[in-house]
Amino acid sequence: MPRQQRAVATRSSILRAAAAVIERRGYGAATVAEIVREAGITKGALYFHFASKEALAEAVIAEQGEWRTQHGPDADAPVQAVVDLAYSFVEALLTDPLMRASVRMTLDRVAADEVIRAGYLGWIEAVADLLREAEAAGSLVPGTDPERFAYVVTSVVTGMQLTSEALTGRADLIERVEDFWRLVLPVLVRPEELAGVDPRPPGLRTTEAG
Amino acid sequence: MPRQQRAVATRSSILRAAAAVIERRGYGAATVAEIVREAGITKGALYFHFASKEALAEAVIAEQGEWRTQHGPDADAPVQAVVDLAYSFVEALLTDPLMRASVRMTLDRVAADEVIRAGYLGWIEAVADLLREAEAAGSLVPGTDPERFAYVVTSVVTGMQLTSEALTGRADLIERVEDFWRLVLPVLVRPEELAGVDPRPPGLRTTEAG
Repeated sequence: MPRQQRAVATRSSILRAAAAVIERRGYGAATVAEIVREAGITKGALYFHFASKEALAEAVIAEQGEWRTQHGPDADAPVQAVVDLAYSFVEALLTDPLMRASVRMTLDRVAADEVIRAGYLGWIEAVADLLREAEAAGSLVPGTDPERFAYVVTSVVTGMQLTSEALTGRADLIERVEDFWRLVLPVLVRPEELAGVDPRPPGLRTTEAG
Repeated sequence: MPRQQRAVATRSSILRAAAAVIERRGYGAATVAEIVREAGITKGALYFHFASKEALAEAVIAEQGEWRTQHGPDADAPVQAVVDLAYSFVEALLTDPLMRASVRMTLDRVAADEVIRAGYLGWIEAVADLLREAEAAGSLVPGTDPERFAYVVTSVVTGMQLTSEALTGRADLIERVEDFWRLVLPVLVRPEELAGVDPRPPGLRTTEAG
């Protein structure tokens, strides 16, 4: 592997190792020594990439922004894109330990205030951007405030994933998100465009929208 | 003070001291010694009431149930009671360190799984009970599922208080809750009853519902 590519791969394996250890022990009890062991690298290699445990924590939290860049939804249908972003996010929580650790660390506020703030604002802005496009396309119920609605969306998904984690180990998380979309789409989307937005999880869209 | 009354007062002062210390240090770093100092009692007095730090944590979390008993909303107007319960809850977060610590410890899962589950379920059930009364009174939009709607309500308030804490130190929490009620009341309450429910915070109800 070329040197730069190897560095990227090492950085990524450190982040995944950190996520695994943090998920196992909690951030407070996680040690650099255990993360190094989990990643199968030297302490020197870790410190080459991250100056401290705190810098590593910030990088894990910043992974939510990386994830959004990679899962940038289709802006041709911005309301559907907001619906789908919520489903992709909870799917990532179910399947990706790095996203799980990243979100948990944001909620636990284990980094500097501005890092935590950026964690929340990134989601609100991503949703608000899509809603502003939807508004410009005339798809929203008049009077909808994209930023305020985005705040509601990110709050409900945040609260649902916590509640669902505590009550069912996240087994019902996707259907809870569907409850929310079925509830609010009629007050978000103009009636004549409502049939064009599918509130169901992407995996359940083989038949007509119900 | 009679002995039993004194015991209740001591128990309450221990809970408030625990909340203050946990808010300052976090649960992990809070020690029984510091809680004892904060409460101005002996270690023996604390252990008379709580067998361990874990038992104290459970009691702090259980305070949310106590709070609901004391702030039982007016069931004559069950939809308004749900709206008001959300406002009373966030008001308590703003003013009551014990409720703040209680909620934070539930979110941080610092007690046994069944204690944490009861923390979430207590709110969902309280809201669902009121919505079932509203449904029986014919006030809800047909097809509304009280439990599912209660899950959305408790999730959004949970997520909003976390988001608002991170972004503004909870300064905008009440207006964010108002955004939610203005958004969802039209899909919760039958049109002919909508004018009878005020989405505004109780403190702002001196004029006509707007």
